[in-house]
Amino acid sequence: MGAPVEPPLRKPLPETLVAALGERLGDRFHVGQAMCDEHGRSETHFSPMPPDAVAFARSTDDVVAVVNLCRQAGVAVIPFGAGTSVEGNTLAVRGGVSLNLSRMDRILQVNAEDFDCVVEAGVRREELNAHLRDQGLFFPIDPGANATIGGMASTRASGTNAVRYGTMREAVLSLTVVTADGRVIRTSRRARKSAAGYDLTRLFVGSEGTLGIITEVTLRLHAIPEAISAATCSFETIGGAVDTVVQSIQLGIPLARVEILDDIQIRAVNVWSKLDLPEQTTLFFEFHGSERYVAEQVETVGELAAANGGGEFRWSHRTEERNALWKARHEAYYAAVNLRPGAIGWATDVCVPMSRLAECIAETKADLQNSSVPATILGHVGDGNFHVVFSIDPTKAAELEEVRAINNRMVRRALAMDGTCTGEHGIGLGKQEYLVEELGEAVDLMRAVKQALDPQGVLNPGKIFS
Amino acid sequence: MGAPVEPPLRKPLPETLVAALGERLGDRFHVGQAMCDEHGRSETHFSPMPPDAVAFARSTDDVVAVVNLCRQAGVAVIPFGAGTSVEGNTLAVRGGVSLNLSRMDRILQVNAEDFDCVVEAGVRREELNAHLRDQGLFFPIDPGANATIGGMASTRASGTNAVRYGTMREAVLSLTVVTADGRVIRTSRRARKSAAGYDLTRLFVGSEGTLGIITEVTLRLHAIPEAISAATCSFETIGGAVDTVVQSIQLGIPLARVEILDDIQIRAVNVWSKLDLPEQTTLFFEFHGSERYVAEQVETVGELAAANGGGEFRWSHRTEERNALWKARHEAYYAAVNLRPGAIGWATDVCVPMSRLAECIAETKADLQNSSVPATILGHVGDGNFHVVFSIDPTKAAELEEVRAINNRMVRRALAMDGTCTGEHGIGLGKQEYLVEELGEAVDLMRAVKQALDPQGVLNPGKIFS
Repeated sequence: MGAPVEPPLRKPLPETLVAALGERLGDRFHVGQAMCDEHGRSETHFSPMPPDAVAFARSTDDVVAVVNLCRQAGVAVIPFGAGTSVEGNTLAVRGGVSLNLSRMDRILQVNAEDFDCVVEAGVRREELNAHLRDQGLFFPIDPGANATIGGMASTRASGTNAVRYGTMREAVLSLTVVTADGRVIRTSRRARKSAAGYDLTRLFVGSEGTLGIITEVTLRLHAIPEAISAATCSFETIGGAVDTVVQSIQLGIPLARVEILDDIQIRAVNVWSKLDLPEQTTLFFEFHGSERYVAEQVETVGELAAANGGGEFRWSHRTEERNALWKARHEAYYAAVNLRPGAIGWATDVCVPMSRLAECIAETKADLQNSSVPATILGHVGDGNFHVVFSIDPTKAAELEEVRAINNRMVRRALAMDGTCTGEHGIGLGKQEYLVEELGEAVDLMRAVKQALDPQGVLNPGKIFS
Repeated sequence: MGAPVEPPLRKPLPETLVAALGERLGDRFHVGQAMCDEHGRSETHFSPMPPDAVAFARSTDDVVAVVNLCRQAGVAVIPFGAGTSVEGNTLAVRGGVSLNLSRMDRILQVNAEDFDCVVEAGVRREELNAHLRDQGLFFPIDPGANATIGGMASTRASGTNAVRYGTMREAVLSLTVVTADGRVIRTSRRARKSAAGYDLTRLFVGSEGTLGIITEVTLRLHAIPEAISAATCSFETIGGAVDTVVQSIQLGIPLARVEILDDIQIRAVNVWSKLDLPEQTTLFFEFHGSERYVAEQVETVGELAAANGGGEFRWSHRTEERNALWKARHEAYYAAVNLRPGAIGWATDVCVPMSRLAECIAETKADLQNSSVPATILGHVGDGNFHVVFSIDPTKAAELEEVRAINNRMVRRALAMDGTCTGEHGIGLGKQEYLVEELGEAVDLMRAVKQALDPQGVLNPGKIFS
């Protein structure tokens, strides 16, 4: 099972390297099978590919030491955060050392007046927001999982707030990075904007650990709005839901969140999160602003929804209700996979220009309806980005092939609409052939950059391109 | 006069190259002195450095041809748009061919439902907005000059709307680029976001023509708001003005524009643009939204301004008044230089975290008050970014040295505050030593990327780093 990747070129770790890492890290260095297996698993359908050892870093200095020792030994280093990526991004394709940064979990600075903070790479997004809440600030990027900030930067993650607050591309102000040759660099100062040289920050954001290892991240923050309202609204058609969003944006409504879930995903969420939403295409909305302005946004969007075949808005007025709604949305992946007991998940995503989104979702939906594998559609409709989650019976090899074919058609459909093969999951192992279809010779430039910054190919080899 | 740069390594263009370019471009290829001089001038204080020839491109194919012929001959290619950059970014340090893209001025697509457009690199921002207006769309990035979109992408320009709408970093969705080896690549699809591989778009944005030549740009657009209100407000102190902005942002007010002009800049603007503003530190505001929401923003910000020593808001209610106000702001550079007849300008900028902005401006102001050279301060206060414009008597060599020293102190002050040596002008020739002070060994990575993508050093040599 698993995506077709080149055969692993494994060899045992040199004994001198094992000794040196053991000496440097003590009980934070592991060669036991259980620990390696834990770092060789994927959240989704990829076959396990365990590393030969696992190193836990406590500091940027630890990362430097591991990178230097591994480079000198010609051994791969695979940075690892929460392990929640979905395109096999942390699998040890060629063995090597999995470098776990989850214990680098200190929040180093919160600069409230500057709306920024500096965190170690292993801080998780939920813990960061819990820390920020008392200061009236929040960090908006929210992939489904409680991922680490370093991992989110590495995959250019986004989530439900991206339509209003952007993705990790916009959220990261600066990075501390350990390079392949063991240097520690900072990609930018803490100023909000800069025209000083090449944009190294954006070069490392989304590079999936292949160009350097992110150890600290300076993040842009936002003020918690005075008023927040969330609601769900069912629609007769996918087109009606998408049109409501397009028209809202045309009117300048700053939708904070607007998520689409198809009927199957709603059924899955109802079961998993014990909700009772009508099993129809549904938008989950959130509005941010002053009390008066939120009321105005709600009024306008309500009128647009009604004109586009939307039903009544069901409001989550209290904070607990609202949190329950978004928790259900964040757990939608698990809800979808659990449509079948014992199933494994396959999550894929594409992103297309807004004008093609309704068509792209509808065609994908038709394809899913002809499939024997249960699958849900959910997406960040304000960005033109949507996911399909398949619930695969692992005992049926044919199902994996069927899903692979559907995924293939979905990606090619998006590319034909001038879209991208992944809006927020990254390339990892699963989308490499599509990256080339999408960008052609531009991928040669990426290879040239990789060769320039990691000439020995030590950093997360086999990812993005092989 | 001019910044200290390494001595030009000039040699006459090979005759075979002149013949080949002449054959390819016909009357769009020039070797005459007048045309070369026109492309060897800077908007600011840099000494003229003319190219040896000027080529006008009409198409991406023209650009490919010029790049290939010049690379084969070992001759530099310097992309040129409107020539309005201020750090000597288009000067022909080592001679070569200035490649003028201003005749590539077609608007190729406007995708209203997707809020984007595709333009050739030579389109200017004012012409683009004139074209978009009827469709209810606008492109917000507005450096002072009517620059080309390609030039704005190359210097990572921003302007007065950046606090709300971002800079060229956020505005560019995709680029068509001619590489140093003459290939045509597209950096991204037209989707709003993507996690597909390295962020080549952001790598080229701000690379000042040193990594490739941008020939087409896909831009993110915005809906023209239902209501727009602009006002000016004078303050007793710089700190009062800055605090008003910080507190507004903390309250979640989405200021569309908020510009600071010091008393000297106001005097210059009053003369140049025939206004009668009080000669005090002044904020220029603009609010965007629905009628009701703009009224609410105005009310809140008015209260904050009053509490921070601000005077009455002077409103520009009619569109013509508002346009006149922003025209005055956009011409502030020329107004400042013209404080003295026959003077030449030196424009510099830095950007610091918001919490340090008032202090940084105040210390800079004190420094200027001790100088014999007239100078103004103006800035994009919501970003922490401000400019100083000096009005230098070209007959007095000592003035240039005095300005150089003030600029030096200003940049180091910003760096000491964790700021950047340039918020939106770029490095060009003028800020190279500061780039190294700012980012240290990270600059080595930039050099490695340059070496990987332009191994022969053909593209705009001597810029960003020498």
